[in-house]
Amino acid sequence: MKKITTRNQNYSQWYLDIIEVAELAENSVTKGSMVIKPYGYSIWESFQKVLDKMIKDTGHKNAYFPLFIPKSLLTKESKHVQGFAKECAVVTHHRLKDSPDGIIVDPESKLSEELIVRPTSETIMYDTFSKWIHSWRDLPLLINQWANVVRWEMRTRPFLRTTEFLWQEGHTAHISEEEAEAEARKMLGVYMDFVENYLAIPVIPGLKTESEKFAGALRTYSIESMMQDGKALQTGTSHNLGQNFAKAFEVKFADKDGKEKYVWQTSWGVSTRMVGALIMSHSDDDGLIVPPRIAALKIVIVPIYKTEAEKTEVLAAAKVIQEKLKILDENILLDDRDYETPGSKFNEWEKKGVPLRIEFGPKDLEKNSATLVRRDTKEKISVALDELLEKVRILLEQMQKDIFEKAKKFREENSYQIDDWSEFKKHFQEKEISGFVYSHWCGNDACEREINEELQATIRCIPLEQKEENGKCIKCSKESKKRVIFAKAY
Amino acid sequence: MKKITTRNQNYSQWYLDIIEVAELAENSVTKGSMVIKPYGYSIWESFQKVLDKMIKDTGHKNAYFPLFIPKSLLTKESKHVQGFAKECAVVTHHRLKDSPDGIIVDPESKLSEELIVRPTSETIMYDTFSKWIHSWRDLPLLINQWANVVRWEMRTRPFLRTTEFLWQEGHTAHISEEEAEAEARKMLGVYMDFVENYLAIPVIPGLKTESEKFAGALRTYSIESMMQDGKALQTGTSHNLGQNFAKAFEVKFADKDGKEKYVWQTSWGVSTRMVGALIMSHSDDDGLIVPPRIAALKIVIVPIYKTEAEKTEVLAAAKVIQEKLKILDENILLDDRDYETPGSKFNEWEKKGVPLRIEFGPKDLEKNSATLVRRDTKEKISVALDELLEKVRILLEQMQKDIFEKAKKFREENSYQIDDWSEFKKHFQEKEISGFVYSHWCGNDACEREINEELQATIRCIPLEQKEENGKCIKCSKESKKRVIFAKAY
Repeated sequence: MKKITTRNQNYSQWYLDIIEVAELAENSVTKGSMVIKPYGYSIWESFQKVLDKMIKDTGHKNAYFPLFIPKSLLTKESKHVQGFAKECAVVTHHRLKDSPDGIIVDPESKLSEELIVRPTSETIMYDTFSKWIHSWRDLPLLINQWANVVRWEMRTRPFLRTTEFLWQEGHTAHISEEEAEAEARKMLGVYMDFVENYLAIPVIPGLKTESEKFAGALRTYSIESMMQDGKALQTGTSHNLGQNFAKAFEVKFADKDGKEKYVWQTSWGVSTRMVGALIMSHSDDDGLIVPPRIAALKIVIVPIYKTEAEKTEVLAAAKVIQEKLKILDENILLDDRDYETPGSKFNEWEKKGVPLRIEFGPKDLEKNSATLVRRDTKEKISVALDELLEKVRILLEQMQKDIFEKAKKFREENSYQIDDWSEFKKHFQEKEISGFVYSHWCGNDACEREINEELQATIRCIPLEQKEENGKCIKCSKESKKRVIFAKAY
Repeated sequence: MKKITTRNQNYSQWYLDIIEVAELAENSVTKGSMVIKPYGYSIWESFQKVLDKMIKDTGHKNAYFPLFIPKSLLTKESKHVQGFAKECAVVTHHRLKDSPDGIIVDPESKLSEELIVRPTSETIMYDTFSKWIHSWRDLPLLINQWANVVRWEMRTRPFLRTTEFLWQEGHTAHISEEEAEAEARKMLGVYMDFVENYLAIPVIPGLKTESEKFAGALRTYSIESMMQDGKALQTGTSHNLGQNFAKAFEVKFADKDGKEKYVWQTSWGVSTRMVGALIMSHSDDDGLIVPPRIAALKIVIVPIYKTEAEKTEVLAAAKVIQEKLKILDENILLDDRDYETPGSKFNEWEKKGVPLRIEFGPKDLEKNSATLVRRDTKEKISVALDELLEKVRILLEQMQKDIFEKAKKFREENSYQIDDWSEFKKHFQEKEISGFVYSHWCGNDACEREINEELQATIRCIPLEQKEENGKCIKCSKESKKRVIFAKAY
């Protein structure tokens, strides 16, 4: 059996080992793309189910736009294409044919215009939005799409950075700048709600710097989380696009005053990258840990027996437990495989991060109880069967809270305020878990770039919630009113 | 306002008009690809929700495999690649760059091996299956994927034939030929259940002829439906792949007897094409008709008022009706837009095929009743408010049944048994609605091809449910035991 590298030994290898032993994903023969395995995909489906409802509840409608974007369309907004040009998968032909050298791409099938596999859908969508929107009555237009996108990557890492990934992308058009700004902030709030309350990952909402914002946006907001190695991971972004794309794609409306105006737009997205964040936030050296509210499989019952008589009795009682608990969740697994030992079942579900394991054997049967085992703390709790339903319900809620609090405590313990350059430098050069460093910054690109080059730390965001404070830029000592978060990042 | 071409005037244009007025989809700037608009996509989501549950309930698990297939992998099964070679979108480069002529594809980013955008996923999946499967304990392997696929098409038609389309594709591996055959038949049965009981489209399950089977399959089953112009449409297919792919991709297992054997496989899929089938089966000259069980929006309430006082009273009572009916369906629309007249609302929801419209105005309020209008028959029914819930429930069930029966009756009225070649020929040459023709066929490719060339009629399937019967091939008069269905087809 595969042994998991510990986090202390090698965090990076530990991450890959967790993905392997929990059967989440694996590399595919297509370089840079992964296969999302059934258990990993069930977690993504669980994300989708919750988030899709949140997106619809805020008035957005799902639609589907083409995978291929003609090159001329992708290049219409100049900053946008500059941001994605180096990552574009390009379709140039549409046929294969037999040849003496085997099957080749038919040169006669060359396209008159190359097609780009969407890296994101602003351009292909807004070309259509310009046809859908005529008057202020057509606004706001609130569209969401669940799709695969492709951004060519040289160095990939499952879930965190893959050439193809799955995501949702929201795209909206509004009557005014204020409304677009409110939308961008609202959707950042939706992501925050989802990531904190379902994935149990604490986040810091903030504004990206000019150098880190989305290509073509006016401003980009993000939510940033701290992984267990102290590195930052951006779990979601929301962009106020201003009128940049509206002008490039002629997305205009007749306002109430009869005048023709450009719309104000937003876009926002989260991806399978969140699965990587989930893994790195909570899991331990024994495997994955999934918070109960988002777990596709929350509870597994493992029956324990030796004799045939015991087996009959235990399985019958275990089925009653399974039925009883279905009030909490339809999907409760009674793992009755008889070619696996209870020990190897414990091990398997531990590796897969199922929140709660119920061990049930002849002794439990005798005492009219069952043994609950929490995945996060490994704590074993004996519970009378007639209290089981209520205890399990409470325990799942408690675990959700505890997992979040643990991650939050870790983040707090690894957050620093540093106001002195030599201390700042030493911190990032020497500290193994460098965490989040709150320091003043003058707002100048040059300081940001120099810090990144020297210390491999970047500005993750300018936190939205902070008091104004007089300070001096950590690098150049110019005056500053706000702290930003510096961190090493994924 | 757009006028819908009638079916009698031009069936083909009628189909396009329905798609336009019901706001289902539209052409995109990417040639051959369509934009699925929010209302059209909500219908696809409704399909997905029901079918995904059916697929999971029969033991399959969802997963996700790469969009791109290396050329060498696609070409491993020789018949398979021959079937898809002419329809392959090929990715050859991975970067754009600036040049004096504008942004161009960077010639230095040429891939060492071309990537094919998946036309279907047998090859990319089975390469992985060969790593997942070791022993008989790993079987059956039952995988499903919801994805976009690309098959290059020169002549496209929204939903029916587009370069990119959405679908689900099931892929399974089994221990024996019998088990694979049973699986292929079982999934055909699932599709039949879904299409008949939800989409209300009667189908005929059958076997495809050798010339019409899936490229690389041992045999292909399909379900065939008749559209309102008498043409056949294949709504789903299920393939027994035998060991063809297993041998090409070395998908082997150690059997109970210790011997290493190739697995037996199936694949099966349905796509956004089903939306086309739905439109063409039921809709009329006034717009779309969606059967209640599959309608994303089943009921719309249209309030009618003139004065402000009426408006207040009517809207308050309409909200009570809306709440009451939520027991039947969460998603009931009270169309309270005050800038549209009731008449234009009636018209809009009629075009969009919402099964039941509830008209509610001052007169209804006075009589403590509401007026129900069936979309399929246009029948108006006045119902007392305290009977509303039960009446609506019964009516929706009745409509589901009636819509199915109507389509079935149409199919029966347009089905023929023909045993004489000159009659057969005259039938396809002269009859406007040629429908399904049950005739004997010797099993020979040549007869099938000649009929197709002469009459543009193809063998849709060899129906599974039929009595053996001595007859003579309609073309060559050789002996035959079975009838097949000849039809013009989409």
